[in-house]
Amino acid sequence: MEFSIRISALKPSAIREILKIPNDPDLISFAAGNPAPDSFPVDEMKAIAAKIFDTSAASALQYGVSEGYTPLRDITKKRMTEKHGIMSENDDLIITSGGQQAIEMTAKIFLNEGDAVICEEPAFVGALNALRSYGARLVGVPVDDDGMDVAVLEEKLKTEKNVKLIYTIPTFQNPTGTTMSLERRRKVLELAEKYDVMVLEDSPYFELRFRGESVPTIKSMDKNGRVIFSGSYSKILSPGIRIGFACASKEIISKLTVAKQVSDVHTNLFFQMLAAEYLTNCDIDAHIAKICDMYRIKADKMLECMEKKFSPKVKFTRPEGGLFISCTMPDGFDGAELASRAKAAKVTVVPGVAFATDDTKVYPTFRLNFSLPSLDEIERGIDRLAKVVNEYVG
Amino acid sequence: MEFSIRISALKPSAIREILKIPNDPDLISFAAGNPAPDSFPVDEMKAIAAKIFDTSAASALQYGVSEGYTPLRDITKKRMTEKHGIMSENDDLIITSGGQQAIEMTAKIFLNEGDAVICEEPAFVGALNALRSYGARLVGVPVDDDGMDVAVLEEKLKTEKNVKLIYTIPTFQNPTGTTMSLERRRKVLELAEKYDVMVLEDSPYFELRFRGESVPTIKSMDKNGRVIFSGSYSKILSPGIRIGFACASKEIISKLTVAKQVSDVHTNLFFQMLAAEYLTNCDIDAHIAKICDMYRIKADKMLECMEKKFSPKVKFTRPEGGLFISCTMPDGFDGAELASRAKAAKVTVVPGVAFATDDTKVYPTFRLNFSLPSLDEIERGIDRLAKVVNEYVG
Repeated sequence: MEFSIRISALKPSAIREILKIPNDPDLISFAAGNPAPDSFPVDEMKAIAAKIFDTSAASALQYGVSEGYTPLRDITKKRMTEKHGIMSENDDLIITSGGQQAIEMTAKIFLNEGDAVICEEPAFVGALNALRSYGARLVGVPVDDDGMDVAVLEEKLKTEKNVKLIYTIPTFQNPTGTTMSLERRRKVLELAEKYDVMVLEDSPYFELRFRGESVPTIKSMDKNGRVIFSGSYSKILSPGIRIGFACASKEIISKLTVAKQVSDVHTNLFFQMLAAEYLTNCDIDAHIAKICDMYRIKADKMLECMEKKFSPKVKFTRPEGGLFISCTMPDGFDGAELASRAKAAKVTVVPGVAFATDDTKVYPTFRLNFSLPSLDEIERGIDRLAKVVNEYVG
Repeated sequence: MEFSIRISALKPSAIREILKIPNDPDLISFAAGNPAPDSFPVDEMKAIAAKIFDTSAASALQYGVSEGYTPLRDITKKRMTEKHGIMSENDDLIITSGGQQAIEMTAKIFLNEGDAVICEEPAFVGALNALRSYGARLVGVPVDDDGMDVAVLEEKLKTEKNVKLIYTIPTFQNPTGTTMSLERRRKVLELAEKYDVMVLEDSPYFELRFRGESVPTIKSMDKNGRVIFSGSYSKILSPGIRIGFACASKEIISKLTVAKQVSDVHTNLFFQMLAAEYLTNCDIDAHIAKICDMYRIKADKMLECMEKKFSPKVKFTRPEGGLFISCTMPDGFDGAELASRAKAAKVTVVPGVAFATDDTKVYPTFRLNFSLPSLDEIERGIDRLAKVVNEYVG
């Protein structure tokens, strides 16, 4: 028995042990990527579910079409067009099983084994692994407070062979929490055109802005079908229902639909109908505003505690939205060592190495999540973490 | 912009037009693969859903683990072991987004581009396309009333290069409806051992036996982790919820879990919890017995009408379970032409070419589904179809 080359490349990572969360009620987790459970509109969902069982059970429980439930596609298209200027008349939309599937299927339809993908460094590990699972060669480009370094991006586009895709989370990036500037977004698109590569704009958090001015998506500036926009209902409705979507040119959506058909036929139809009903009859924008208020308070609390308690040697980002804050220790320190010591002190963080294209190196960074813990957990957790990190960096 | 080689191979088929179902209330469809909507346990599911919203909404709507919801895995393992003898102590189980995903991920973890997969000819088109989507070279082995021809299978195993997998639906095969004999199942496993290839035993229908003696699964005879068993709740609970599973050696399940993580993180958690609760507190075996009664009556009705109305030149299978009957016209006639004429007469069937490894040839076969139409539709539909087919075969 021999596994495929592509999947053998995805070896269990050394950091997996660190990420394993012990079942300890006293443990405080800043390691998750989960939304706050009190952000789920449970009462509305419950009422809609009962209604679907009463009026449409036979269709909600039957097979559906691979593109997704038409009313959910339509209302998602409408919102993305009217509110975010994302869809053009040449574009279409497919419902996916979470944003993750949009990334995996984009990799499947574009990448031949050995093709290069330029990605932000650091970047979301789930996306990096999806790209790796199709034999992609990952080429990292550093991220700063204004997003991807476009000078390095152009250099890589000039020198790397068989680049097919630029992978970016421009808004409230995972893990840094930072947002790419408008100027750089324009430049990314311009470079993609110039060097004839596609852009995968992964935006699971972009509606979760709790401060500052929103920046247009790269997709909204796309005139030539160069950008695949991946969105998600995970952070504004519920991640457990696994509903995301991709917007792209009709030609690309048609290929993604072929990939979707062979992958899982279609996404859970009952919850597609439930989401469509929610979006039609409830006020999703008011709901999002409520989530943003909740996350602003949590982020502010975490940042306030960090400013008070952390050694000035530890730098951290100040996100205007999303779920994450990224911390950087002085060069030479190891985020994995810090994560390991923190776990012993009953607070978990994700070490920077988890987000690297090259996981054999040492990174002085770690990621904190502020959406899941309560305000009290944030205060006590940062207290514990500060002791560990201050002792470590000296 | 250029798509990957693997996905470019999946070109829209010429038969897609025939399969497009016009929106016509007078049309009778024998072309579907859908279970009967009155087989869904709607009342029980509705009550369980309400209970989950009341007691466990925060966890049901949150992220879950990629292997699947533990109580659903446990009860599925228990049923498969105690009722079907499928799991050994070296085996494990993963929850997938329908049986389709188990097939797609098995292809992903085993196949390098250009590897050969031996499959039944004809076989389920969704599986063939999933295999093609990883660049598999499909090698067909004919199916008769006792399943795959094992003499041809051995010949292919001897002569074909880089064979990695044997793909089979041994029980109530799609599209033929026939069941592989015990002797041949033993032989398939023996040959897989001898030639060191894996067996993907796809069994979405195996619990839907409405007549005759059940035959042990190939997986139940597997001592060496040679078989991946793919099962599904689509035909015994609901296909719209997209819940299936794969049983295989622990090593393989661990690789499938890596593939699952990058594919869609996990299957809809709410319905995994709902299915676990259903299996724990409701009588699934009584429910399956009810579905089998329903399908026996429908299959018998269809066979009775076909015997009465069809020209003796048209042969057809007499399945003991599942959803399908397969028809064969004399050599030289074209199932695609028949399907096209039938559609004009307002009854749809699937032409044999849809299930072929080589879709450039002409096949004298077509598939009928008896689970979805009502008894009245079966009678009227066979009436229409008999006129068309009798006129065609002359």
